[in-house]
Amino acid sequence: MNHNLYFCGHSLGLMPKTAEQYVQKALEQWKTFQVNAWNHANWLELPTQLGLKIAQLIGANADEVMVCDSTTLNLMKCLLSALELNSSRHVILTEKDNFPTDLYMADAIAHLRQVTVKTVASENIIESMNKHVAVLLLTHVNYRTGAKYDMAKINRLAKEKGILTIWDLSHSVGAMALHCSQYDADFAVGCTYKYLNGGPGAPSFIYVNQKHHHQMSLLHGWMGHASPFAFSPDYLPGKGIASYLLGTPSILSMKALEGALQCYDQCDMEALEKKSHYLTSLMIRKCQQALPELQCLSPADSSRRGSHVAFSHPQAQSIAQAMIERGVIIDYREPNLIRFGISPLYNTEEDIERAVEILREIFHAILFVKN
Amino acid sequence: MNHNLYFCGHSLGLMPKTAEQYVQKALEQWKTFQVNAWNHANWLELPTQLGLKIAQLIGANADEVMVCDSTTLNLMKCLLSALELNSSRHVILTEKDNFPTDLYMADAIAHLRQVTVKTVASENIIESMNKHVAVLLLTHVNYRTGAKYDMAKINRLAKEKGILTIWDLSHSVGAMALHCSQYDADFAVGCTYKYLNGGPGAPSFIYVNQKHHHQMSLLHGWMGHASPFAFSPDYLPGKGIASYLLGTPSILSMKALEGALQCYDQCDMEALEKKSHYLTSLMIRKCQQALPELQCLSPADSSRRGSHVAFSHPQAQSIAQAMIERGVIIDYREPNLIRFGISPLYNTEEDIERAVEILREIFHAILFVKN
Repeated sequence: MNHNLYFCGHSLGLMPKTAEQYVQKALEQWKTFQVNAWNHANWLELPTQLGLKIAQLIGANADEVMVCDSTTLNLMKCLLSALELNSSRHVILTEKDNFPTDLYMADAIAHLRQVTVKTVASENIIESMNKHVAVLLLTHVNYRTGAKYDMAKINRLAKEKGILTIWDLSHSVGAMALHCSQYDADFAVGCTYKYLNGGPGAPSFIYVNQKHHHQMSLLHGWMGHASPFAFSPDYLPGKGIASYLLGTPSILSMKALEGALQCYDQCDMEALEKKSHYLTSLMIRKCQQALPELQCLSPADSSRRGSHVAFSHPQAQSIAQAMIERGVIIDYREPNLIRFGISPLYNTEEDIERAVEILREIFHAILFVKN
Repeated sequence: MNHNLYFCGHSLGLMPKTAEQYVQKALEQWKTFQVNAWNHANWLELPTQLGLKIAQLIGANADEVMVCDSTTLNLMKCLLSALELNSSRHVILTEKDNFPTDLYMADAIAHLRQVTVKTVASENIIESMNKHVAVLLLTHVNYRTGAKYDMAKINRLAKEKGILTIWDLSHSVGAMALHCSQYDADFAVGCTYKYLNGGPGAPSFIYVNQKHHHQMSLLHGWMGHASPFAFSPDYLPGKGIASYLLGTPSILSMKALEGALQCYDQCDMEALEKKSHYLTSLMIRKCQQALPELQCLSPADSSRRGSHVAFSHPQAQSIAQAMIERGVIIDYREPNLIRFGISPLYNTEEDIERAVEILREIFHAILFVKN
């Protein structure tokens, strides 16, 4: 279907055929069963069922994940709960190059809860983990550079210092093996429209470690009630993570994600991560061989890297534009960055070789007068 | 297509052909343009564009409405802003029979902001509007009885007493003429999957009166930033209601709603409301003639009524079940209520006559031994 070379799986994943099929199915269900589809088609089970599937991809227990709302909103819920659990402390620590929405929501919640946000450079995170810090909010893989935190190590240090962790897995999930339970992450969120191919604006997921399930969501909505259809005026929270559900789930978007996640049914995430390492390493090596002028911003060590690689160049914007015109879909980030998202689910060695060849041609066409 | 008689437009509206077409279009856009669909297909404009369409249906100004998130979450945003605007007062006043999610979120926000919620019976709302009340949160049309508040009068009294109003229009929008600006409502939210036929879990809308646009959303996300794609670490709110956008919009669900709203493009809402009054009055009259045993809980005066009618009977559950088996889709609410949602967009006089005839047959079959 797609004749271009697609390297934007880190932004919006390609459409899986099953995603399309599941949306068609949801439309049929709405058309045929009308309001009774909520029961006939088990639509209300989707947040839990999809949560179960995501749990497998992030190394969580079956009852620790729900799919609902946006990443920004799930971050909000995690921040509120984590601050409540650690209420004797008053600092949210985060990285200054965190994804903007994480920073914006951290600021907003800090203002509401009268705590402060401390932002430091990535390399100063560990030294800044002190006894004042209630919550450490990090994006596992940096959206610009692709640099990846050592989740096991950070969680261990955080635990030693009495700090709760919230991980944004948006740029990790679906491209690598994750171990939220094993590495004892406290909270996590992530988006499903990147490597998971859930579709534009697909619903997000929220993970809450079992040990924190006594802390219900501080925000309440009818879907989080123990018996939503009792329509009781009194709020009785659903068990465990169920209380983090708020409003009515967005079924068409949920069904697209349900279809997309089928691609992961037989997937060995350790093997997928290996493929990601292999392909991102190949991309870096090939680029550096062909074009030493490009500066690679992504870590050289693949264990410290996510599944996209970023290069800087003063003419990055022109290069990105020319690549796209030649059918190599990459993206540009101000001021001077090009990013190649490499989805180990569908990108191949050949994709990379062809892309680097085109990049080389473009590069020379842009930088040198040709006769 | 549908051979049954559908009276659940107050719960999940029927699928408009255009809703299906627009979802297909979105799938095509994703498939064809991949990540570039965000630009090619103007997906990012949807919250504003759909907001503009909803504004026309609720009598708001063009820049006062956005479509995003769920009703529960939009309520949360309105409650936070209204309490901030009226921060010298410490009571949220609401009706004890309000829709449960409204009560749950009011309680949650009250706890977060250290204010109290006062719930009173509908008939005591006006006398409870005193100088301690910061915010009056009401659902315009009661989800059980169909009773409708006089929005003009309540807003006028609220203004006199320095109270800000938040209206939940979930059971009103799409079935009647609304006048948010003219009646000077402060905030409003509503759901789009009932009379507006936006599809299961379709995104909600939020209305903020222009005079409150200096009060930005207290919660911040990247979609509410003045320049989301500058990826600035510092939050700079978008103008006016734009700051109420938080996470990435759910495009497939947005597109279904976009298609559904086409049905309203040429629609005179005053005429639609008249049709609603006519049909609900007919339903009440026919039922009472045929079955005096049914007690009508909906107001007799159509100007005090929404577009669904509710009847109580000790055997309501059996009656509802038998109706559904006979292809008359109505709903049952504990303990003893049956509801007929009447969508003036697609329900007809004949629907009502046939439904009442079937109801009469069922009623007699259930209540009397037949030979």
